Amino acid sequence: MSSHKHTIVIVGYGGMGSYHTQLIEENGRLEVAGTFDLLEERRSASEAAGYTAYASYEDVLADPKVGTILIATPNDVHKEIALAAFRAGKHVICEKPVAMSSDEFIEMTQAAEAAGRVLMVHQNRRWDEDFRVIKEMYDHGTIGSLFQLESRVHGANGIPGDWRHMKAQGGGMLLDWGVHLLDQLLFMIDSRVTSVSSNLSFVLGNEVDDGFEATLQFENGVKAIVEVGTTNFITLPRWYVKGTEGTGIIEDWSLTGRIVTRNQESEKLEPTPIRAGVGLTKTMAPPSEGATITEALPPAAELSSSFYTNFADVIEGTAEPIVKNPEVLRVLKLIEAIFAAAETNQTIKDFDRY
Amino acid sequence: MSSHKHTIVIVGYGGMGSYHTQLIEENGRLEVAGTFDLLEERRSASEAAGYTAYASYEDVLADPKVGTILIATPNDVHKEIALAAFRAGKHVICEKPVAMSSDEFIEMTQAAEAAGRVLMVHQNRRWDEDFRVIKEMYDHGTIGSLFQLESRVHGANGIPGDWRHMKAQGGGMLLDWGVHLLDQLLFMIDSRVTSVSSNLSFVLGNEVDDGFEATLQFENGVKAIVEVGTTNFITLPRWYVKGTEGTGIIEDWSLTGRIVTRNQESEKLEPTPIRAGVGLTKTMAPPSEGATITEALPPAAELSSSFYTNFADVIEGTAEPIVKNPEVLRVLKLIEAIFAAAETNQTIKDFDRY
Repeated sequence: MSSHKHTIVIVGYGGMGSYHTQLIEENGRLEVAGTFDLLEERRSASEAAGYTAYASYEDVLADPKVGTILIATPNDVHKEIALAAFRAGKHVICEKPVAMSSDEFIEMTQAAEAAGRVLMVHQNRRWDEDFRVIKEMYDHGTIGSLFQLESRVHGANGIPGDWRHMKAQGGGMLLDWGVHLLDQLLFMIDSRVTSVSSNLSFVLGNEVDDGFEATLQFENGVKAIVEVGTTNFITLPRWYVKGTEGTGIIEDWSLTGRIVTRNQESEKLEPTPIRAGVGLTKTMAPPSEGATITEALPPAAELSSSFYTNFADVIEGTAEPIVKNPEVLRVLKLIEAIFAAAETNQTIKDFDRY
Repeated sequence: MSSHKHTIVIVGYGGMGSYHTQLIEENGRLEVAGTFDLLEERRSASEAAGYTAYASYEDVLADPKVGTILIATPNDVHKEIALAAFRAGKHVICEKPVAMSSDEFIEMTQAAEAAGRVLMVHQNRRWDEDFRVIKEMYDHGTIGSLFQLESRVHGANGIPGDWRHMKAQGGGMLLDWGVHLLDQLLFMIDSRVTSVSSNLSFVLGNEVDDGFEATLQFENGVKAIVEVGTTNFITLPRWYVKGTEGTGIIEDWSLTGRIVTRNQESEKLEPTPIRAGVGLTKTMAPPSEGATITEALPPAAELSSSFYTNFADVIEGTAEPIVKNPEVLRVLKLIEAIFAAAETNQTIKDFDRY
């Protein structure tokens, strides 16, 4: 570990920008050297919070004390801010989605490489505990081999009223939340995506999608359903996963959930038919008593370090990034395939060069 | 109403066949004249229950007292049994799925027409109360205009161990349960299906699907997701529907459920961001207090009469069938499109001649 703290300037001091100050301050090896925002009110808010507000981005780049630029602006200006940072010899942490397209991101990674600087994308939801519980189940076969994963995030607030509903600024739910949910799946599932089908919703009349559903088929046989909605007054579970020996559910962010598995000790009994609606059904009757076991969710899988500790290690040259740029690129290409699948109403295949 | 009861012989005295005796006895205009089954044990069961067991199907057809044949056999023999019934001048009620293919069903309807006899398919789940609650919401805009309907039936028993897991006998969940769920949707939604995508599951290693998921897009903008699973140790809600003013849920066959709608009286407040996982979100924060209203499900829509009363009316010539054969044909063609979509992993379009 180096003896001085690595300095970061936050560009874009909105909701996420100010949240980053907390995350950075929690980490003993990093410090916030200041912020830059185009808006006077946010510069004042930064000063009030004790962070120097730079007068211009040029001033930030010209400051030799500044090692890293953290980009938390709307998505359409990520690339230009990052390219200028690399030209000035700074490292870059960038909020997600890192770019408006995979081509933009390739330009960013090439500029980072040419400058010999680090570019790391803040795909922070790889550290979400709910996801890591699922990852534990996937990695260790808690309920047998997981073959179906359903990852849903539902809200009822529509798209919050700022750049997130503007197409030119990279708004919409596929880019905003989809990038997290897809990143989690590709991080966890070590297999090529062989096909994707999807549809976007435009319930609210925005120019960008206010939700989407995508079905991903992986080469290893896993199927994943990813859904985001912003007009859901009742939420479906955050995670619903099926394994060869049982089913797991995580209801919400508070990690309410359970796993239910086949009781291997139980005699195999035919269930008793039930009346369901106006019909009879044996197939859909509850399993006979004792045929299943309900248990608590397993503890979450641990990643090797936190995002910011990993970042400090990466710029010190002692670790590989946990969020790797080829992975980020793959997610962007998947998002492009999902847009294409929805626009053409076709199943898109063979796009994933994994 | 005629002065004597219409007589029905049940061919196939298994689970559904014996269930039909109850349904028929409940109706004052119909009576069970007997049963026929290939298996000795079922003939004995029939006699024990007080229903004459005919010795052969020929005997049934030769009996002038018998007006109607009810077919509750495995699916692969529906057609031959029905054609023989029409040749003998009998009406036919047939269990679902009525036939192995739309072509078979066309042959059956042509034979009925040539004989001047009635053929009615027992799509009884149009009368399911859970479905009729959703129909009420769809027809009357209880939560605004319904634009997304998710209809799921989940079990954990696999496919019960008889002909239902044999391909040659028309087994598999798409034919067994899919035919009900799709029939409900097409009965309710007065619009052409413009596209369908789907996938089948073969988790259990049967030669037939042990579940499926299909996404239907209708010309009027409605999207429907239909899912059946037999390896689901935890069940997702039977119905989850989204309207322009709210969301509705029916958890299970006991009609546990609710609707949550936007409170029009409430001031439009931006929700407060919440910490969700390791991130912050305003989009997925719960709506602010008072912004929504939770209410009970509406009462179920009523159909004009029960299946069997309608059947009696139809053979007496006083009513149109509620389950119309062109509707049944359309569902069979939709099932064929769903099979094709799954087999080719393509979105199938323009198949619905509505």
